[in-house]
Amino acid sequence: MHIRVILPAIGDTFLQSALDDATAWALPDTKIDAVPLLRGTASIESEYDEALAAPGILDRIAEAKADGVDGIFITCFGDPGVHAAREVIDVPVVGGFEPAIFTAMAHGERIAIITVLPNVLPMLRSLARRYGVEDRISAIRVIDLPVLGLDDHDLMIQRLSEQAVDVVESGQADVVVLGCTGMLGVVEKIREALAEAGHQVPVVDPTGAAITWLESSVRLGLFPSRTTYMVPPDKARNA
Amino acid sequence: MHIRVILPAIGDTFLQSALDDATAWALPDTKIDAVPLLRGTASIESEYDEALAAPGILDRIAEAKADGVDGIFITCFGDPGVHAAREVIDVPVVGGFEPAIFTAMAHGERIAIITVLPNVLPMLRSLARRYGVEDRISAIRVIDLPVLGLDDHDLMIQRLSEQAVDVVESGQADVVVLGCTGMLGVVEKIREALAEAGHQVPVVDPTGAAITWLESSVRLGLFPSRTTYMVPPDKARNA
Amino acid sequence: MHIRVILPAIGDTFLQSALDDATAWALPDTKIDAVPLLRGTASIESEYDEALAAPGILDRIAEAKADGVDGIFITCFGDPGVHAAREVIDVPVVGGFEPAIFTAMAHGERIAIITVLPNVLPMLRSLARRYGVEDRISAIRVIDLPVLGLDDHDLMIQRLSEQAVDVVESGQADVVVLGCTGMLGVVEKIREALAEAGHQVPVVDPTGAAITWLESSVRLGLFPSRTTYMVPPDKARNA
Amino acid sequence: MHIRVILPAIGDTFLQSALDDATAWALPDTKIDAVPLLRGTASIESEYDEALAAPGILDRIAEAKADGVDGIFITCFGDPGVHAAREVIDVPVVGGFEPAIFTAMAHGERIAIITVLPNVLPMLRSLARRYGVEDRISAIRVIDLPVLGLDDHDLMIQRLSEQAVDVVESGQADVVVLGCTGMLGVVEKIREALAEAGHQVPVVDPTGAAITWLESSVRLGLFPSRTTYMVPPDKARNA
Amino acid sequence: MHIRVILPAIGDTFLQSALDDATAWALPDTKIDAVPLLRGTASIESEYDEALAAPGILDRIAEAKADGVDGIFITCFGDPGVHAAREVIDVPVVGGFEPAIFTAMAHGERIAIITVLPNVLPMLRSLARRYGVEDRISAIRVIDLPVLGLDDHDLMIQRLSEQAVDVVESGQADVVVLGCTGMLGVVEKIREALAEAGHQVPVVDPTGAAITWLESSVRLGLFPSRTTYMVPPDKARNA
Amino acid sequence: MHIRVILPAIGDTFLQSALDDATAWALPDTKIDAVPLLRGTASIESEYDEALAAPGILDRIAEAKADGVDGIFITCFGDPGVHAAREVIDVPVVGGFEPAIFTAMAHGERIAIITVLPNVLPMLRSLARRYGVEDRISAIRVIDLPVLGLDDHDLMIQRLSEQAVDVVESGQADVVVLGCTGMLGVVEKIREALAEAGHQVPVVDPTGAAITWLESSVRLGLFPSRTTYMVPPDKARNA
Repeated sequence: MHIRVILPAIGDTFLQSALDDATAWALPDTKIDAVPLLRGTASIESEYDEALAAPGILDRIAEAKADGVDGIFITCFGDPGVHAAREVIDVPVVGGFEPAIFTAMAHGERIAIITVLPNVLPMLRSLARRYGVEDRISAIRVIDLPVLGLDDHDLMIQRLSEQAVDVVESGQADVVVLGCTGMLGVVEKIREALAEAGHQVPVVDPTGAAITWLESSVRLGLFPSRTTYMVPPDKARNA
Repeated sequence: MHIRVILPAIGDTFLQSALDDATAWALPDTKIDAVPLLRGTASIESEYDEALAAPGILDRIAEAKADGVDGIFITCFGDPGVHAAREVIDVPVVGGFEPAIFTAMAHGERIAIITVLPNVLPMLRSLARRYGVEDRISAIRVIDLPVLGLDDHDLMIQRLSEQAVDVVESGQADVVVLGCTGMLGVVEKIREALAEAGHQVPVVDPTGAAITWLESSVRLGLFPSRTTYMVPPDKARNA
Repeated sequence: MHIRVILPAIGDTFLQSALDDATAWALPDTKIDAVPLLRGTASIESEYDEALAAPGILDRIAEAKADGVDGIFITCFGDPGVHAAREVIDVPVVGGFEPAIFTAMAHGERIAIITVLPNVLPMLRSLARRYGVEDRISAIRVIDLPVLGLDDHDLMIQRLSEQAVDVVESGQADVVVLGCTGMLGVVEKIREALAEAGHQVPVVDPTGAAITWLESSVRLGLFPSRTTYMVPPDKARNA
Repeated sequence: MHIRVILPAIGDTFLQSALDDATAWALPDTKIDAVPLLRGTASIESEYDEALAAPGILDRIAEAKADGVDGIFITCFGDPGVHAAREVIDVPVVGGFEPAIFTAMAHGERIAIITVLPNVLPMLRSLARRYGVEDRISAIRVIDLPVLGLDDHDLMIQRLSEQAVDVVESGQADVVVLGCTGMLGVVEKIREALAEAGHQVPVVDPTGAAITWLESSVRLGLFPSRTTYMVPPDKARNA
Repeated sequence: MHIRVILPAIGDTFLQSALDDATAWALPDTKIDAVPLLRGTASIESEYDEALAAPGILDRIAEAKADGVDGIFITCFGDPGVHAAREVIDVPVVGGFEPAIFTAMAHGERIAIITVLPNVLPMLRSLARRYGVEDRISAIRVIDLPVLGLDDHDLMIQRLSEQAVDVVESGQADVVVLGCTGMLGVVEKIREALAEAGHQVPVVDPTGAAITWLESSVRLGLFPSRTTYMVPPDKARNA
Repeated sequence: MHIRVILPAIGDTFLQSALDDATAWALPDTKIDAVPLLRGTASIESEYDEALAAPGILDRIAEAKADGVDGIFITCFGDPGVHAAREVIDVPVVGGFEPAIFTAMAHGERIAIITVLPNVLPMLRSLARRYGVEDRISAIRVIDLPVLGLDDHDLMIQRLSEQAVDVVESGQADVVVLGCTGMLGVVEKIREALAEAGHQVPVVDPTGAAITWLESSVRLGLFPSRTTYMVPPDKARNA
């Protein structure tokens, strides 16, 4: 099985770590490769960034289609370009939101998302409503670090742990979802922080959820429904 | 007051009629001008088209900002680029969906949208959920004409009338909204068709709703909330 | 265009200021006049008041119909008599709730209403559910001043500002709606108070929203749907 | 226990039968009396009628309060004046909707209301949303007879039976609620019609539901909550 | 009328008090008897307990059917076995949740449940969603006493009063429902505690609500709908 | 990884095929074994059956806990005993509903379930509401075959295909979920039937979804949240 990771950002900053992390979550015989965008933004933290990133993502979707990959992970929690991509390729495509949230739903009732900046809260609430799962998401918290600040692993872990413990201790959530796919390699630390505070509460890593989701979808023979994701009619396009 | 109409499509096919129609709905002292996209697609009938159109729309938003316009109408019922635009400009920005649907809500209980192709149904349902008004939209119908086929006015009027009469007579709706901003200059005909069939049911023209909405928003001193539409953080962007 | 303002209260206390304020919001060539009730209550702050006011409102609706007005604003945020009126007149009729809330919905995600007394909270929550927009209204606050106490402008401004700043700073809302049509001439002050506290958050004046809404509805050719607001059957009535 | 039935209509047409029917449902030692309105309308089949009836209902509430009754049934399915009444009296007050629908909810999943005219459908849908039970009401049907035509018992029974059997056989409902308190003395016939068609489906009589509901509420020591139904502030009133 | 109380627990600890309490709420000529389970658990405070109790409850349902009772109260707020029972008997069956909550809904807008342990919160939230009334339940509080600790009446009353007063004073609820059918004989005390704190707020006793509900249902000729609660097909069963 | 399949039925009829099918879906190095119930019912097609099966399921959960398995699949679409089981074991436990429905949600908007008998429709609708995904499930169809009739593979395939094609062609659904875990080995046939009818629509096999879900959950380090699924307090139990 061949899964393509599309990093929806320009520049190679996160590329290797995204690839390494996805590979670590994947089955041994799953082939993982990763590509950044050739046009787009350095990170996605607004609807504006998401809009600017979309054509560059779709360039990479066309390429992945030509390469015959089996599944695609657009590694951003805001699911940028995911629905557009499904219209033009016949293999499963996910971003970070759907697999992480749906996975969380089978392990506890109320789900907390902990993400980067307040800027993305309206986008995440919009996605929850779009997917019809808003009643399952009981809290969305931020750690007030931009995506490009997540390379300070210790600070990220400290703030994620604080928010995770607080949201559980205040009785607001039963499962914690890391709400940015740039929060790499820290899920175990957050779970431990919760356990040390006395809470046996699952924590979902969005990269892990996405990779296993794609592997399962491929094994299950699934693909984008053509009654939801109809093929776009032919027309002039110069984007 | 200066309102800029952004036609989110490449090519000038609809430009003059969009401008004329918007001008006809506007107050006499409202200045209206219109621009097409320099990059994008010939029309928007899919999430794919919408994604490809977004950067070209945002180019025009930046230009409008520099020009000091008072309000912006992105003339497409799918609200492409609307939320991204609100993050980067301080004047009201609307597409076709919000003003038409919200206007309809004060004139009858259950709203029917009649749009172009089945391809856009999932997008419209997603928007309804995103805006939290899905319980007010009781039916979405299509006339099975692509956007670029709407220049056959007689056929468009015939099919819109058929759908409008049918959705009302089957007891499914109380207000009809024309679900494509390319359905120009036909609202009165559809209302008459309903009246001839014995139904005193209002019909909302999305261009008219958008232009009057913008005029009202400007007069009311409104603008995009910066707690919903936060200013995107600075970063590298090359889209 | 001729818009009739019906002040759904007995006595002339608010009449001149309601007329002046509506006129100030209206287009220059919109004719505005205003009438109080001949039977009813001094203000509406309960379901009881609303029930007692309704027949007096409908008297004024009949009169407006005879006068051939183009639109009617029943100037109370609780929309008293609005739906009954729509059954018996063919022109747009609004109260304060619908135009203010629907207008707010296009400028930010979560809407806070700031109203007069706790007594009206259940009515406002009921209206939100009736209109199917309860998921957009994130907070309803009170300033603990009765309608007839709103003539103390300084106190009203102070308390509205406090509540507006607090509801935004506590992260509960993105748009503020003044939840009483007696809160005349203060919207700019509340917006400034928010700006001074660092929040670029729109504030909606319900009178302004209603007047512009009616003007737009008339220009758009809209009227009460006769499948929602059917004409009442003939029968004996002596109310 | 003393229960007052308020017939929210002028004229004595239904008074005796409403009294007889309520008495037949009541416990032997419950005292039932009934009064019509002195001002109002001959029947309630619109928001307009409901608005006109409200002050006359509140007159009767004041009288009932002076008489020291233990509970009040405003015998109309649209719950006219019910919420206003609760603000000014300390004993349970119900119309037809709440007790019938809430009672139905414990006997089957999806509830069908069968009522008189299409005119009242929007009112009933509004009530369902107001009470937060819209997801339990799966169908609302009409028999196309006005309230004042219900004295043709045979026709009423025939049409109610047709609608009841049809709504069950088409798989749309599990419990049937008679949606007009003027549908007196027919519940058993409708249940039999369903049974003859092979459907063991409960049918709720709104008068019976209201009378037993009031008796239960009194026995349980319940009364209108003063945080929902606050006492209206003093002020001038001349309605 | 003969109502059977099924105490869904092994052991006779609560049996006499459950019988006495139900009898006190019942009409004089209602015959009440009560039986515990022969197999099950000492109390129900988890989904695990509920699952283990179900077959023992169904044994008692079969027995009640053979005895020809007119109605059944499974005296637990979690409604254990209620829906299974309705499939196999033709008389009304209720637990504690439905009658208490539905009764509360006609006396105030927002309902608070005060129950025993945090363990049951997810079950109660699930029931609220199952019944489609989640929007009416504004708070669920616990007194941190297990069911078997409720025999300390003074402590139970103290904690219930504290929670009831707090949930009302913090503006979260309009009606209080005692969320465990083991909270016997205290409803009046809690109502008094609220009154002493200045709150005229109704309090619903679930046993009283269930007994009166069953009496009313029998008088109204109601029974489990066979389109919701279909008769289970024949098959081998050895549970 | 060791996954235990619990067939929640007495008798060995389906045991071997359930084991074979689960094994076929599993990864090569996943160890799968399967056990039937020692007490329960021959199949689950009612709330009654589900109640009777629960203790026998929990016996098998205790055994699985002692055996140190890594995940548990209770192979029934109604999720019997799933929530109770999660309270007493620290590894992922799923039935058929959650993994199949949540998996489906990432491949199309509106989900149709096709199940066995009308008897289970209320249970499935209840589950959908319990899980907060009722807005995603657009249709539930039946093939009118009991579970024990599913061994007629040809008839099952024919009826499933008919329903699948019909629900898609009538525009009601975008993804099809086989709504009984006894529908073994037919998913490919149904997908082909849809393809032959011209519909590229994914079909979800609940056994495949469950097995891959468990494998993913284990790989992701997930387990039942102890704030949703609290450990039941100690007490006497003899079920």
